[in-house]
Amino acid sequence: MDITPTSQFPSAEEMQGRLSRLQEAMQKARIDAYVSFSPDNILYLTNFANLVHERPFILIVPQNGVPSFLVPKLEVPHVESRIIGRFDIVPYAEFPAPTARSWQTGFEKLVGGYRQVGVESVCPFYVSSAISAEVFCADLIDDQRMVKSAYELGRLAYNGTLVTAAHDRLLAEARIGTSLAEVMGKYSRQVVSQAIADNPALNMLATKFISVFHPASISHDPHNFSDIDMTMERGGPHVSVITGMLNGYGAEVERTWFLETVPDEARRPFEVMLAARRLTLELAVPGNLMSRVDQEVTALLVKEGYEDNLLHRASHGMGVTGHEAPFLADGYDRMIEPHMCFTIEPGIYIPGLGGFRHSDTIVTTETGNQFLTSGPIELDELVLGR
Amino acid sequence: MDITPTSQFPSAEEMQGRLSRLQEAMQKARIDAYVSFSPDNILYLTNFANLVHERPFILIVPQNGVPSFLVPKLEVPHVESRIIGRFDIVPYAEFPAPTARSWQTGFEKLVGGYRQVGVESVCPFYVSSAISAEVFCADLIDDQRMVKSAYELGRLAYNGTLVTAAHDRLLAEARIGTSLAEVMGKYSRQVVSQAIADNPALNMLATKFISVFHPASISHDPHNFSDIDMTMERGGPHVSVITGMLNGYGAEVERTWFLETVPDEARRPFEVMLAARRLTLELAVPGNLMSRVDQEVTALLVKEGYEDNLLHRASHGMGVTGHEAPFLADGYDRMIEPHMCFTIEPGIYIPGLGGFRHSDTIVTTETGNQFLTSGPIELDELVLGR
Repeated sequence: MDITPTSQFPSAEEMQGRLSRLQEAMQKARIDAYVSFSPDNILYLTNFANLVHERPFILIVPQNGVPSFLVPKLEVPHVESRIIGRFDIVPYAEFPAPTARSWQTGFEKLVGGYRQVGVESVCPFYVSSAISAEVFCADLIDDQRMVKSAYELGRLAYNGTLVTAAHDRLLAEARIGTSLAEVMGKYSRQVVSQAIADNPALNMLATKFISVFHPASISHDPHNFSDIDMTMERGGPHVSVITGMLNGYGAEVERTWFLETVPDEARRPFEVMLAARRLTLELAVPGNLMSRVDQEVTALLVKEGYEDNLLHRASHGMGVTGHEAPFLADGYDRMIEPHMCFTIEPGIYIPGLGGFRHSDTIVTTETGNQFLTSGPIELDELVLGR
Repeated sequence: MDITPTSQFPSAEEMQGRLSRLQEAMQKARIDAYVSFSPDNILYLTNFANLVHERPFILIVPQNGVPSFLVPKLEVPHVESRIIGRFDIVPYAEFPAPTARSWQTGFEKLVGGYRQVGVESVCPFYVSSAISAEVFCADLIDDQRMVKSAYELGRLAYNGTLVTAAHDRLLAEARIGTSLAEVMGKYSRQVVSQAIADNPALNMLATKFISVFHPASISHDPHNFSDIDMTMERGGPHVSVITGMLNGYGAEVERTWFLETVPDEARRPFEVMLAARRLTLELAVPGNLMSRVDQEVTALLVKEGYEDNLLHRASHGMGVTGHEAPFLADGYDRMIEPHMCFTIEPGIYIPGLGGFRHSDTIVTTETGNQFLTSGPIELDELVLGR
């Protein structure tokens, strides 16, 4: 599949296409109005990234016609500077505010006339309870986001290229004694700087990006980056991670590697991780059930004796964020379709030895999948610092 | 009031005190169990900062006894490394997961036995709708957070000292041509580096910190930092902002200033802003109604002819975050009490001329208030770059 990488913001046509798909889904689900509060869904539909705080931003999409976007008056110029597509911007005075000028009064005017109102899973209680109509939960935008447009694949491919370059440099520069604090600054700055050079209007509010690593002493605990003074160590496994949301689209690449030497006991889990990775890649294709992929990968890892060393599913999705549905996960019985984006990252975590996980980002094609990121894969390519 | 600045994490006694106050409030409100999902409230009660993503972290506080903390298995070591106080950590396998090992099943076991369950305003629909008991909204932790303990005042005072030092340096170094990109990196790095030196276990997940400025051409639009290449200009008003959440407590200082020269038409709005600031400071004392403070400040600004140039309330609160309740805002009819923390920041915004706003952080005492931040105030101190 040909993908044209791009760093540019979506066109009005792209945005209209997203809105039309949502309104079609609303007609099928018989939802008269859809209330979106999720900043990720609002970004997807409007190109505006908001920081969620006490002043609500609420998008109200009717089954036909132009959506209304209820925003604090303070933010109107900011909204207007980012939004792409046709929206009625409806400001409210401030939060808190006297009733007549409050967001609640503005919201009631916008949704009060509808019979059946859809809200998102993440809709806060204070918003859903302010709707007097029949409310039901329908994650229509989240569902729609799972299948990417050609433009979206271009954005994800561009981000994949950037994180691949930064991660290649991280591996080339890996040395005993390099601290997490150094790595946190250096490689995320490289990626963000390049992204700004390519698109000077980059949105920092849609950029939440990290570059980190774990030395062997902590890599069995994959979400613990609390000690920013920890350093690269002789041996391994180290796990490096470059991931996040970069100007409104996700990106991720991760590798397991060693400095100078490989402990003997690390060889087998590394090879089993590679086998699990190959199996995930083989199964992450249209027509397979997502839960089934994870079950088969887990079965392989259990058969190899690592049942007590599993901490997470084989994959998460990626889109306007770096971490979202769909998931290759047991219990998630959804079919893989073309043009979905997944990380491929089964992992093994052994206290006292370390963590073993590569992550690459792929996109499904009509019949298979292809990579958006790359990097060394085999053990002999991942003994570094020599 | 004597406040001892501290950069250190809370003691187990401090945390037990918070829990006891919450459980007393639950008894009064006849709530059998309180479900906390807000990452800020969870941080306040546990010292654990979580990144909200699709794997839920849910704290369930019973009216008596030890709270349960439902967390993804993947995060257990991370939770254990940060948590202070007694909690039953209840892991669930993964999200998504087959029903028996899902968070929903774990949650049902923890809340299923209660009759009256309190949730927060921000509780997501997918959590509140998973509770079969009678659910009502009661922001007991948010209410409690408004009045600070002696320890909390020490944390806020410490952060105030750090941002004051960085902001003084920003003003001293302000020059025509300095870009937003430079300022974004430099002064937030100074603050975070000092905070790490003082507490090497600083929690990056509880640090969301920015240093930014606006030149005159955009300072009328106070939330617009989209062009990171914009530079300081001859004249003004510029508005500089150092604010955010720093290792689990808030901090903020802002100033309006000029480079080399002051446009004549900027003098009057600057002086009126100072008058509004003095009035806010005078009224931000125990015994006054919060709404009344904002009404009187607005009345002053309207009387001076700036009715069309007002974009926000006079103040927000600060605590475990840099931006939270309580608010000095029209429509917010709550009484100011001792040991509350407020920004003092009435502003005037004039398209074509610029924005006028200082922000300092204060804490209320038994009878008045005192500053946690400082900086030059008068116009002749704020003509810089000479």
